[in-house]
Amino acid sequence: MGTEGGGGGDDEYRRRMSSSHHQMQGVGVGGGATVEVNLSARRPFAEKVWSDLAETFFPDDPFRGFGALPPARRAWGALKYFVPALDWAPRYGLAKFKYDLLAGVTIASLAIPQGISYARLANLPPIIGLYSSFVPPLLYAVFGSSNNLAVGTVAAASLLLASIIETEVAADEDPQLYLQLFYTAAFFTGLFQTVLGIFRLGLIVDFLSRSTITGFMGGTAMIIILQQLKGLLGMKHFTTKTDIISVLHSTYHYRHEWKWQSAVLGICFLLFLLSSKHLRKKLPKLFWVSAIAPFMVVVIGGVFAFLVKGDEHGIPIVGNLKKGLNPLSISQLTFQSRHIKTAVKAGLLSGILALAEGIAVGRSLAMVKNEQIDGNKEMIAFGIMNIAGSFTSCYLTTGPFSKSAVNFHAGCKTPMSNVVMSVCIMLVLLFLAPLFKYTPLVALSSIIVVAMIGLIKAKEFCHLYKVDKFDFCICMVAFIGVVFFTMVTGLGASVGLSVVRALLYVARPTTCKLGNIAGSETFRDVKQYPHAKSIPGILVLQLGSPIYFINAGYLRERILRWVEDEENLCKGVGHDLQYLVLDLGGVTSVDNSGIGMLLEIHKSLERRGMMIALTNPRLEVTEKLVLSGYIRDVLGEEWVFLTVKDAITACRYALQTSRSKGENEV
Amino acid sequence: MGTEGGGGGDDEYRRRMSSSHHQMQGVGVGGGATVEVNLSARRPFAEKVWSDLAETFFPDDPFRGFGALPPARRAWGALKYFVPALDWAPRYGLAKFKYDLLAGVTIASLAIPQGISYARLANLPPIIGLYSSFVPPLLYAVFGSSNNLAVGTVAAASLLLASIIETEVAADEDPQLYLQLFYTAAFFTGLFQTVLGIFRLGLIVDFLSRSTITGFMGGTAMIIILQQLKGLLGMKHFTTKTDIISVLHSTYHYRHEWKWQSAVLGICFLLFLLSSKHLRKKLPKLFWVSAIAPFMVVVIGGVFAFLVKGDEHGIPIVGNLKKGLNPLSISQLTFQSRHIKTAVKAGLLSGILALAEGIAVGRSLAMVKNEQIDGNKEMIAFGIMNIAGSFTSCYLTTGPFSKSAVNFHAGCKTPMSNVVMSVCIMLVLLFLAPLFKYTPLVALSSIIVVAMIGLIKAKEFCHLYKVDKFDFCICMVAFIGVVFFTMVTGLGASVGLSVVRALLYVARPTTCKLGNIAGSETFRDVKQYPHAKSIPGILVLQLGSPIYFINAGYLRERILRWVEDEENLCKGVGHDLQYLVLDLGGVTSVDNSGIGMLLEIHKSLERRGMMIALTNPRLEVTEKLVLSGYIRDVLGEEWVFLTVKDAITACRYALQTSRSKGENEV
Repeated sequence: MGTEGGGGGDDEYRRRMSSSHHQMQGVGVGGGATVEVNLSARRPFAEKVWSDLAETFFPDDPFRGFGALPPARRAWGALKYFVPALDWAPRYGLAKFKYDLLAGVTIASLAIPQGISYARLANLPPIIGLYSSFVPPLLYAVFGSSNNLAVGTVAAASLLLASIIETEVAADEDPQLYLQLFYTAAFFTGLFQTVLGIFRLGLIVDFLSRSTITGFMGGTAMIIILQQLKGLLGMKHFTTKTDIISVLHSTYHYRHEWKWQSAVLGICFLLFLLSSKHLRKKLPKLFWVSAIAPFMVVVIGGVFAFLVKGDEHGIPIVGNLKKGLNPLSISQLTFQSRHIKTAVKAGLLSGILALAEGIAVGRSLAMVKNEQIDGNKEMIAFGIMNIAGSFTSCYLTTGPFSKSAVNFHAGCKTPMSNVVMSVCIMLVLLFLAPLFKYTPLVALSSIIVVAMIGLIKAKEFCHLYKVDKFDFCICMVAFIGVVFFTMVTGLGASVGLSVVRALLYVARPTTCKLGNIAGSETFRDVKQYPHAKSIPGILVLQLGSPIYFINAGYLRERILRWVEDEENLCKGVGHDLQYLVLDLGGVTSVDNSGIGMLLEIHKSLERRGMMIALTNPRLEVTEKLVLSGYIRDVLGEEWVFLTVKDAITACRYALQTSRSKGENEV
Repeated sequence: MGTEGGGGGDDEYRRRMSSSHHQMQGVGVGGGATVEVNLSARRPFAEKVWSDLAETFFPDDPFRGFGALPPARRAWGALKYFVPALDWAPRYGLAKFKYDLLAGVTIASLAIPQGISYARLANLPPIIGLYSSFVPPLLYAVFGSSNNLAVGTVAAASLLLASIIETEVAADEDPQLYLQLFYTAAFFTGLFQTVLGIFRLGLIVDFLSRSTITGFMGGTAMIIILQQLKGLLGMKHFTTKTDIISVLHSTYHYRHEWKWQSAVLGICFLLFLLSSKHLRKKLPKLFWVSAIAPFMVVVIGGVFAFLVKGDEHGIPIVGNLKKGLNPLSISQLTFQSRHIKTAVKAGLLSGILALAEGIAVGRSLAMVKNEQIDGNKEMIAFGIMNIAGSFTSCYLTTGPFSKSAVNFHAGCKTPMSNVVMSVCIMLVLLFLAPLFKYTPLVALSSIIVVAMIGLIKAKEFCHLYKVDKFDFCICMVAFIGVVFFTMVTGLGASVGLSVVRALLYVARPTTCKLGNIAGSETFRDVKQYPHAKSIPGILVLQLGSPIYFINAGYLRERILRWVEDEENLCKGVGHDLQYLVLDLGGVTSVDNSGIGMLLEIHKSLERRGMMIALTNPRLEVTEKLVLSGYIRDVLGEEWVFLTVKDAITACRYALQTSRSKGENEV
């Protein structure tokens, strides 16, 4: 192989190579027609930018198929897209309403105890929980795209809001300001969700991975259960912190406040609720028993507390509830610079959390019915209902899992079930609210505990540990962070770890050496397929993931190390390593630093008398390699192949030609 | 095709499919031996973690080949790894020293004017610049691994340090504290670099992409040139800000201070320096003319200023320089909480910048000589020299491009040239320093201007614009940020944009539909190869990049959209879409969310009566899919294929079988 360094020699060599390669193509090697890599495929700049933007922000492409329609129908279609109620309302009839009525009444019976419980969890007046189940569901019914979601408050976000806002003002010191900050936070949540939806930034929610959510939810359920010690033991004083150590310490510290009456009643309620849940598992048709069980607990508990005058005998009760619909709260939003930071922080964090839960619930239920959910549209619907909610004495609402699942099992057909629930709550607010005065707090605590137990998914933790240790770590960081520190700490650390992992994946993409699988034209990882054979004198490497600045340096080192190792191997058996074939099939894109890396590899190999061949570059990569001049000026078009097989054939042919020439010349 | 929804029907269907598939494999379709995907290849947990860690932190694997050596030689090898001087010193002789002596003297003649100039750029006493060219090069000669790098101060980092420290204390108000903060910053730089090197975190430097560096360097060169208006016009007052608007405004504001004598002298010097640079381009052998030209400017200028008493006639001079070596400055490091934040910030930012420049310079020069540079080892060397520098009255040093290039062209062979330079500077400090008192400031300004002009790479900007618009944006953000705002703003915004882009790449990986290239068994993107034909009833999609939480949601939507589009296409020609083949060859890894996504796709397609086949999963992906039970329990092992061709053959066979069965049954 007559290549003794020096630029001139190399050039001469390449010319020879190139001509021999073309001869070879003329000859037509190995059966199949030789198709070349399409180097001229290039999208116009505008088309490329447009398609990139569309893929980034409109992955679901909501308006496809609109092109052929006349303008009026197109506008109607767009309106229907933004207001899904226009889509289903015209086709709505009594047949569907029967189902929605049943589902709506069922979820209303759940909404009352849950609304009151979660409002108390957030240290808010209980009536706010009922208000929040009235206005937002109406709006969701108009703008929401899920047929299964039931709107209401959620435990995790309630506690998160409370834990953030408590840092600014204590609930019992200035309840008015505390409440105002909740409204303001809900307003910012709504604004944030709407903006995200309009700018199609649903991808922000994607940063909450399943592992993060599993760990966070588990941890949150854990601390929410711990918070219920206050209610279950009938205590009056309690810590405002959420971590397990403060809570246990505070429970012990105020042990003189423990009331055995509350504890006994609590255990009875817990047993009742748990057995109703168990019944549902055994006999799925009796799901309605577990669905109305919380309501029954509230009613029975209320009657009992009324009869025995519970509040005087160690069973604290909810206390007065004012009759009447939601008062306007728009004037109570507070944008003073002193408090606005806290309100914005609480709004954004709880908003992301609420979005993640609402969208995930909507999606998983829709999947069962084979329906589609548009995440961005859902965001706008959530946003609108939270903004409107913040004007009408509601705090953060979303689509909680428990309520939506009940809605689904009760056979809901359209968002109309939310309207039915809303009407029920309206009637309660207008006429029945004062009756709930006697609801024992311990009943509410039992309801929360039972709702939360299911969220600690031990099985999922085990599964994660088995499948992916890093995912398990991410999950555990969220869990431990929430339980032992604060909710924000747990969530932040877990998301941070996930992003670092994502960047590491990008920074250290896998490369592998390919070998030929005997009897086929297929080339595969020699580590995975130990019987795959490498070809003497030719090293085939497969790259994956985009090549860009973050990993260009690493890939350069790694490829050169592969080459060195292979050279040593080859020397061991008396060969020379002469060709490096890079399979770019898995490389989705390349940037300026990536092209620079390929150039450096090329120079470095040229100095060792080696050549590079590329196989199967994708459209985007080909475009850039051609534009940068790498393919035409550096590599030579004849060194780009469609398949590894073609590249190997060409390299072998060139090897033989140069060897026989060498022999002839000698 | 007898699949009418329902779980039972599906199961029955799959059983039938599976058996027909196995029959088919028995039959042996289409020539080539049917090799199955190796589902049992699995690395032990410890091996996997170790290899992941090794790839992340030791991509260069410095100790490979050590395994076979006896312990003593292994220890010696490791010591040689950490102290490269031990490697080259024993083989060092007069032959090499001749070259290093010449190179060392040449770079010393450059180090004197550059050291003084850059110290003045940082508003430091000029002597500090000379100190900084004495101690650090000695240490680099011991610990550095590059044979070409010449150590010294750099313009960009000097200005960056000044711009950050000026926010804390003005140079003319409290020069002592100002100087102390520079030492402290250098200390933190050194600490940071050493830690990065020890923990092998070189990948942090990878986050500065080429585009960022090009734009940042261009912008910095621009503002440094603007700063020289002060020196060139002989002004006394000037703004401490660096942005173009403040500088131009300040130049105009103090126009009564302009001195024509300085301006005339400056133009002469500029012309001389530029023509020496031009000469070098025309006659590369005369590189030494341009190398010593700055020194000549200093000498000629000094003599001229001395003769005409320049300081009294509008030609400001450097002023007194004290004789003597570096005084110790370890007691001057200040760790008071008031200032430490600024010092740390200045140290970290300038440290990253200095690392990026030093490593890039070392790498590109090493590449020409076909040598290897170890980035992590370089970091430790830089770190040690900066820590030691901060103890001996030096500020930040690294391997500047201009000096290293001169060193390289002067024929240096080993880091010994740094020692020679260091000795020359020592002699200057001991005996000649006072002579530089008369150096006119305008001479220093001219030297800086000419050094900086080459860093504004207009050609590179054009190239970026042509090849990659996004890279061009990243570059321009850095350039405009530096020129119009501050250096930190420009750098931060540009890095931020690069990272967002990296995450977007990850969040929105390309998927494409594959078609068969006529006359071959190859499947390629139908958009890139318009003549590639898709197979009726079967949709083949190629995924790329890892599948994980960030893109799992997107991929689900995108794949389902591909399926829907294909279904519509198929319906148009009277077919049913029955199979989805996912080519996973480009998927380097998958996490828990990714597996969840595959499950969801599977369920969703099952409900439509479609089946999924996977082809060519990589080792890491196979491991996880098997562990999670996806392959065994959900998909069925018989639906994983080695190549797209195999998958298509199996799908076609199953299609025919079910069709003919259907006909028979009818």
